[in-house]
Amino acid sequence: MTELSLFDRGLHYGDGLFETIAVDAGQPLCWSAHWQRLHRGADRLNIPLPDYATLTAEVQTQARALHYGVLKLLVTRGVGGRGYAPPLEAHPVWHCLSYPWPAYPASHWLQGVVVRVCDLRLAVQPALAGIKHLNRLEQVLARQEWHTPRIQEGIVLDSAGYVREGTMSNIFWCRGQDLFTPELTTCGVAGVIRDLLIQYAPTWGYRVHVGDYPLTELATAEAVFLTNSVIGLWPVRQVQQWRYPLGSVVRALQDQLRAQAWMMRDVEIARNYTA
Amino acid sequence: MTELSLFDRGLHYGDGLFETIAVDAGQPLCWSAHWQRLHRGADRLNIPLPDYATLTAEVQTQARALHYGVLKLLVTRGVGGRGYAPPLEAHPVWHCLSYPWPAYPASHWLQGVVVRVCDLRLAVQPALAGIKHLNRLEQVLARQEWHTPRIQEGIVLDSAGYVREGTMSNIFWCRGQDLFTPELTTCGVAGVIRDLLIQYAPTWGYRVHVGDYPLTELATAEAVFLTNSVIGLWPVRQVQQWRYPLGSVVRALQDQLRAQAWMMRDVEIARNYTA
Repeated sequence: MTELSLFDRGLHYGDGLFETIAVDAGQPLCWSAHWQRLHRGADRLNIPLPDYATLTAEVQTQARALHYGVLKLLVTRGVGGRGYAPPLEAHPVWHCLSYPWPAYPASHWLQGVVVRVCDLRLAVQPALAGIKHLNRLEQVLARQEWHTPRIQEGIVLDSAGYVREGTMSNIFWCRGQDLFTPELTTCGVAGVIRDLLIQYAPTWGYRVHVGDYPLTELATAEAVFLTNSVIGLWPVRQVQQWRYPLGSVVRALQDQLRAQAWMMRDVEIARNYTA
Repeated sequence: MTELSLFDRGLHYGDGLFETIAVDAGQPLCWSAHWQRLHRGADRLNIPLPDYATLTAEVQTQARALHYGVLKLLVTRGVGGRGYAPPLEAHPVWHCLSYPWPAYPASHWLQGVVVRVCDLRLAVQPALAGIKHLNRLEQVLARQEWHTPRIQEGIVLDSAGYVREGTMSNIFWCRGQDLFTPELTTCGVAGVIRDLLIQYAPTWGYRVHVGDYPLTELATAEAVFLTNSVIGLWPVRQVQQWRYPLGSVVRALQDQLRAQAWMMRDVEIARNYTA
């Protein structure tokens, strides 16, 4: 099926959620982590989710067919009438779309990327923060701020001036063994790879700090990097006038993250959910 | 056509706009005002709009067929790839959907409605304020706060605590010949009927004040009312503990507004756009 009802609330209100899932060797990486975030989002919006077994079977089938690429799983509250009030009994609709692996050059991982700071500020909205919902006009506006392929990502601050994320990624920086990443309880998307890093980096010998940081923090960072489910980890070599040499910490994290994400391929599904 | 491509950016990001147009006696009321707001929204989001003649012809045709009811015109940036960056050459997609006139009882206009104050606060986002875009999760969340049919609308404040609007309407209140309505440059939707009132009320002998007002302003208001393109003007008889007697000002405004909206049926199109 390649079409959606014109009366779907996903279209009318962005009343839904999505997950972007990397597929490698026919395996949906970190699927159970994606499922968990989807579940958190559905709880927040009060959208009934299709059951885990159904979605998992679909994601696994499509991952096997795709072999290598990206799946985008969309879940909406389904068809409704005119008006914001959800139907008393909503029938959620979901679609799993396949995309080829994006044609990023290897240098993005090896030498790092160049990043700008966006003019657009993220609005503070705790009710929608952290989850991956379908209201993404802020990201669309921020991503329209540059067109040169020399710049690969934009950092967005919130309306109070704190660093929050990239338009399509989460941001981290480090000093020694201390890793820093913004708190995302007032805006932003809590990425699956960000969660994974926050969870596992302490076991790899790092201290992780999550907080409200001004942009000037990046001036004194030893390294800056971006994460998401598709790129994994991209080192940042330049943010505006600040340049960062490629350090051993970022290299080590790339390796650890890759190993961890691979370990969390769908094999884990059986381990976690066959109770 | 009753289906949308699953790759439409309207679904993926809410990357689009809409207008809700009342149709009476086969005429789309205030169509040129709707078109102007659509145009403002498209400029803000950088979405190329279908041309005026094409949309007008479609709206007129559907209005004639519907005779009495509501049209919802949706315009999206169209199909795109995975990723927030819009295609360099976007092909906007639009759909005009017909709905029956909603079954509101006459008492909503005659005796007024009961209104609550929502817990959800609107985020401050000047980049998206005023326009009628497809990112409407705040309204969906606010509208889920009550289920009793005794309450017909919810007032939403912004994160700073100022009154901004209803979940599906704009709000006004008055003292003598002074009308007050919230500024909508940081959040909210600037409704077509609100704009019309701001424009014409001075010619009917009122002073209109647009500003940042706390909720306590409503405690001392002589009358409160709600506006949108479908309801026109509903008097409010109660907001939480505050009750409002039905005054002559609200009655007069209902009549003046009805006459004005009818004058602004699509006949005006020819007057304004045949230059």
